Amino acid sequence: MKIALAQLNYRIGDFERNTSKMYEAITEARSNGADLVIFSELAVCGYPPDDLLDYDWFVEKCEQSMEAVAECCQGIAAVAGGVLRNRDTGRGLFNVACFMQNGRIQKVVKKTLLPTYDVFAESRYFEPSDTVEVIEFKGYKLGIAICEDIWDLYNDFRYEKSPVQALKEAGAQLIIHPSASPFHVGKIGQRDKVFAGNAERFGLPIIYVNQVGAHADLIFDGDSQVINSKGETVKQLPLFAEAIEYVTLGNTDFLSLPVHFAEPDEPASIHEALVYGIRDYFHKMGFKKAILGASGGIDSAVVQCLASSALGPENVTAFLMPSQYSSEGSVNDAKKLSENLGNRYKMLPITEMFDAGTETLKNLFAETQFGIAEENMQARIRGLLLMSYSNKFGDILLNTSNKSEMSVGYSTLYGDMCGSLSPIGDVYKSKVYTLARFINRQEEIIPGNILTKAPSAELRPGQKDSDSLPDYPVLDEILRFYIDERKGRDEIITHGYDPNTVDKILKLVNNSEYKRFQAPPILRVSGKAFGRGRNMPLVAWYG
Amino acid sequence: MKIALAQLNYRIGDFERNTSKMYEAITEARSNGADLVIFSELAVCGYPPDDLLDYDWFVEKCEQSMEAVAECCQGIAAVAGGVLRNRDTGRGLFNVACFMQNGRIQKVVKKTLLPTYDVFAESRYFEPSDTVEVIEFKGYKLGIAICEDIWDLYNDFRYEKSPVQALKEAGAQLIIHPSASPFHVGKIGQRDKVFAGNAERFGLPIIYVNQVGAHADLIFDGDSQVINSKGETVKQLPLFAEAIEYVTLGNTDFLSLPVHFAEPDEPASIHEALVYGIRDYFHKMGFKKAILGASGGIDSAVVQCLASSALGPENVTAFLMPSQYSSEGSVNDAKKLSENLGNRYKMLPITEMFDAGTETLKNLFAETQFGIAEENMQARIRGLLLMSYSNKFGDILLNTSNKSEMSVGYSTLYGDMCGSLSPIGDVYKSKVYTLARFINRQEEIIPGNILTKAPSAELRPGQKDSDSLPDYPVLDEILRFYIDERKGRDEIITHGYDPNTVDKILKLVNNSEYKRFQAPPILRVSGKAFGRGRNMPLVAWYG
Repeated sequence: MKIALAQLNYRIGDFERNTSKMYEAITEARSNGADLVIFSELAVCGYPPDDLLDYDWFVEKCEQSMEAVAECCQGIAAVAGGVLRNRDTGRGLFNVACFMQNGRIQKVVKKTLLPTYDVFAESRYFEPSDTVEVIEFKGYKLGIAICEDIWDLYNDFRYEKSPVQALKEAGAQLIIHPSASPFHVGKIGQRDKVFAGNAERFGLPIIYVNQVGAHADLIFDGDSQVINSKGETVKQLPLFAEAIEYVTLGNTDFLSLPVHFAEPDEPASIHEALVYGIRDYFHKMGFKKAILGASGGIDSAVVQCLASSALGPENVTAFLMPSQYSSEGSVNDAKKLSENLGNRYKMLPITEMFDAGTETLKNLFAETQFGIAEENMQARIRGLLLMSYSNKFGDILLNTSNKSEMSVGYSTLYGDMCGSLSPIGDVYKSKVYTLARFINRQEEIIPGNILTKAPSAELRPGQKDSDSLPDYPVLDEILRFYIDERKGRDEIITHGYDPNTVDKILKLVNNSEYKRFQAPPILRVSGKAFGRGRNMPLVAWYG
Repeated sequence: MKIALAQLNYRIGDFERNTSKMYEAITEARSNGADLVIFSELAVCGYPPDDLLDYDWFVEKCEQSMEAVAECCQGIAAVAGGVLRNRDTGRGLFNVACFMQNGRIQKVVKKTLLPTYDVFAESRYFEPSDTVEVIEFKGYKLGIAICEDIWDLYNDFRYEKSPVQALKEAGAQLIIHPSASPFHVGKIGQRDKVFAGNAERFGLPIIYVNQVGAHADLIFDGDSQVINSKGETVKQLPLFAEAIEYVTLGNTDFLSLPVHFAEPDEPASIHEALVYGIRDYFHKMGFKKAILGASGGIDSAVVQCLASSALGPENVTAFLMPSQYSSEGSVNDAKKLSENLGNRYKMLPITEMFDAGTETLKNLFAETQFGIAEENMQARIRGLLLMSYSNKFGDILLNTSNKSEMSVGYSTLYGDMCGSLSPIGDVYKSKVYTLARFINRQEEIIPGNILTKAPSAELRPGQKDSDSLPDYPVLDEILRFYIDERKGRDEIITHGYDPNTVDKILKLVNNSEYKRFQAPPILRVSGKAFGRGRNMPLVAWYG
């Protein structure tokens, strides 16, 4: 039996485009002699549809689209994900994969395990299945396990049910595994463990089909795979790209030899994910051009490089926005970077607006000292000018905050926190440096100066980040323990950090929830990004 | 048996304060001869703790706090809500109510139905119970049903289980119902239906104990009640205030006579909720003073009145920030309002900064027309000046956007969308007028002019909201159908609205998700507010 894996990029809610992509894949697979084509989870509507699922018309369109895709299945079968109504007690919907053949939906398989943690909220919408069923096709017994259904042993907690075990007991000879599995660093290795673990445990081959595409925060990387019953990968589809590939199932297993896929190392994989995330965000939103404030610092430099790779250097404009506190070096470094990248750059000094603001507030601020208000005003004038340009010409403002400053609130709300998308808001400062060195691996694109000078917001004379924060390697490790690993104060201290430093940093993180609440959407590349995956109370007293 | 209902205001994560409130309530109840005191759901940690539940130290503190509260139960028993670890398969935690007596936790009752819709996300953290148990105390068989456990028939969907029915079958004679039930318009009537429905259906009296307090978005109104087995309310605790009250249970039912509680009408109840929401937010965050931009329009006028009621007129400062497009009438109306309320007001014209911004952008904007960029710049300068004042003196900026403009994106991101809290972001414009008339019910606090003039953002000469939007009564009804009722386009049109108007408005709503993503937290007074209860995809193509 020849099986096609259709790893496609869907746009949420765009049923017409999604189903026409699926028609084309079915047609192509049939013309290549495939017996069966497999699509990813919720393919007809795209994943995650979020509260669009609360709308009847949306669910109706899902149901109609699945019928329409099924109609196209003549001379070939398909497994395609979508949503069906639950007409019994419980939540109103099922997350399903339909087995389609002879122009009709022949069988509906419902998802059993509904991920409801981190970025997932499936129990908000779906009723779980409590039965499994195998599907007979061309002499094979196929078991369908949707995404989380094979992750029962690989979570912080253990599900009570093992859908794959139930399918094995029901006689399944092959596990078909439509998924919507977002990328983060380390996810590829995690998946390998889960796929190999299930294949070995049950002696069953597995076909995993993921979607690709980015959605403002989640980046789906594809990585679709075919795993034989020994747990070896015999086919692996590309990362971050659509693809339709084929595999042949012999009597009991796949015939192909194992492939050895070298997982990209961390900076390479983060870089590829972020470039793809920016590109697909712009593509799906219908945007073309990006702007950013280029400070001459490492964060805006890396964002500018990512944007240039994603959109083409001709579509990125850097704004140099010096104040009286900006060093000449910073302005020159920023210019040099734009020249290296082939980006347009424009000077837009903020001094005139800053003077006007100071003048306007002169009476109110009489007898006060230069302080945080004046520092933030500079950042907000930059945000204002960039947004004005964006509103005038339609270019989209990229935010340049990193995860370290997002964490401790070392950023100005409505100032440098402006932007439609935050490309590096899930990358700690130390890793921003690693990314910069990766970008410079062949030639010096980011001027060396930017990598070597001490980080500074340049909002007052002689200011350095290290005036008020520990050095980034220390800060970032403490933040990683607290945010990514969910360790408490006492546990972090056992790793050898100074209690006062830990207390200070945790307090900064806790007291900055209100800023992050109004932050732009952040491309997610870690297992715990700010945004939908981390919901902390705004009004609370803890830590 | 004499029972105390302890309707308290907890601060999330503040175990010390929460447990000491509970000690005091236990001591007071004992000295008043009570046999049993009942607290609300998750009392020891406050509701909702959100992802603080992902931290081990937080769960440990919950467990320790419950033990500590139990130790205090000498000569009196208590039912108190908290969190316990699940040491078996499934999610890591249980949402529990502990029955405490003789200084120890005697029984632990786990919640069965875990609300995971709208503002609730309990399946993210908790494993449901699958058994019920009655507790024998002073010759009575007590059944504990936590919050959602008695709402099984009163949702968009039907749960498969009825915990109250199971408790009845297990012999319960009284339902103890610790809750954390947030306010919205109509909720009091909904609760009455649920309580009376359960009491009548099972012939059981019910004691419902809710928390009070506000948390940036959710407002808990209390409204704790005692319902006899005929479904009549025999005691009702105050709205939006802490209270400890007592009731006596006879052989099989409560002895008190039914009380008749006139539910406040809509503007009164929204007004009370919003004043309480502002006050408790400031109180819990340790803030005292508020500022706002006073445009002379209805939205800022109503927010200013609400803030004055919540914080005292001496703690509210209005900023009048005219541009060359502001009418003299608006400035005078805004002044008059501040005088009527006894608020300080300050003039802070934006012309100087606007001129500086125009000058800075002169070359870039050469040969372009005055448009949305220049309009937004005015709003952003206002935001910048208000935030500068806030950063300098610590006063908290209140946002003045209403739900209609939040819906259609008729607002400037980083401009009039600035603020720490949005008091009327869940109030449609038509209802803002109703609130204004309610505020003026005894004397003209809001100048009549503000109520009668045509709404305008005053960002260009002669601008009126109705230039680009239908009249508010039409707009708001369409928005209510789409957002609050989750009706689709076709269904809305059947209510008699012009298809082109509906299409235009729905498109505006769909295209404004990116703005709302960065909006301040909104006090929730409807069944469907923007914020945690409405998660729409940012990158999508629909409607």
